[in-house]
Amino acid sequence: MAAIREKSPAKRADAQRSIEAILDGAIRCLSRNPEASVSEIAKTAGVGRVTVYGHFPNRADLVEAALTRAIDDGHAGLEAVDLSGDPRDALARLVDSSWQLVNQSRSLLIAAQDVLPPGKIRELHAGPANRVERLIERGRDEGVFRTDLPTTWLVGVLHSIMHSAADEITAGRLTPDEAAGYITATVLAAFSPGALRP
Amino acid sequence: MAAIREKSPAKRADAQRSIEAILDGAIRCLSRNPEASVSEIAKTAGVGRVTVYGHFPNRADLVEAALTRAIDDGHAGLEAVDLSGDPRDALARLVDSSWQLVNQSRSLLIAAQDVLPPGKIRELHAGPANRVERLIERGRDEGVFRTDLPTTWLVGVLHSIMHSAADEITAGRLTPDEAAGYITATVLAAFSPGALRP
Repeated sequence: MAAIREKSPAKRADAQRSIEAILDGAIRCLSRNPEASVSEIAKTAGVGRVTVYGHFPNRADLVEAALTRAIDDGHAGLEAVDLSGDPRDALARLVDSSWQLVNQSRSLLIAAQDVLPPGKIRELHAGPANRVERLIERGRDEGVFRTDLPTTWLVGVLHSIMHSAADEITAGRLTPDEAAGYITATVLAAFSPGALRP
Repeated sequence: MAAIREKSPAKRADAQRSIEAILDGAIRCLSRNPEASVSEIAKTAGVGRVTVYGHFPNRADLVEAALTRAIDDGHAGLEAVDLSGDPRDALARLVDSSWQLVNQSRSLLIAAQDVLPPGKIRELHAGPANRVERLIERGRDEGVFRTDLPTTWLVGVLHSIMHSAADEITAGRLTPDEAAGYITATVLAAFSPGALRP
């Protein structure tokens, strides 16, 4: 860090541009092939392997940074989703938009699952998870989502069903077009307070 | 393979005993520490590292074999679960027993997730998945489980919610005692045909 702080503003801006190019390259390569090597990523980014390793000591660090960046970009896009009105309809809209992102990042996610522990991947989703959490809380307050299980559990259920859909597509048992509908139909039933009624 | 076939029956029995000891050791070590090394596993098994590598060329092969063995053992245990009667009650019993196994194997599963792709892990669960699949089919025939989503999807949902519970415990957001109840309450709601009724 000291070394970076001592650099001139121009050098810092250079380093920043180089990092951006590497992350763009990583997202592009890993989205095509989850096993893309550091060399391929460097080539796509238009930098040398040594430059990549200067910013990311190993491939796992680079994959983590690429996933973080993809999630942050997606998170920003999800800000546009209308979460007002009936929480069930709002959840369906959020699943639909989130799913597009998960599906685009399916290959990147496989790359991440290869090198990062599941807890880490869930941690990187903290931003999107907060949005879901607030929506679930509102649905509970309004009586349309169940309150017999904790909100954190329901967030985890949504997260794991989305990722299950990604795995099912990879396994050839589901098409990307079917997925959002399946996820919504499953999650709305799972979140329903119906089971509490006699 | 030719080399093994040429060995005397006594030597083959020796090799088999050695493999059994290594797998027992691997399950024991990885269940305590998902990052257990091949050296630790060899020590626990009472064999040398070279012997381990003679049977399992790398750590990922060994972890895969250990998970396969743990799943096979668990599968045999699950044969004892009574799956007759109301499919919802049968599913609750199956979740309860399966969860005990998943929970015991939580650390082993983390080890496997570190070295094996998700598709491979799901593939190793094919035996247990068949049992769940038959039960879900019966529930659909009897009108207590939904038929608007494919059975394979519902199997995947159960699988992912179980593994989500394991991750939630690892993250400290859930206790092992709560998990089976949460999984059952979530899955029975998710599988309910209620949403189809007007």
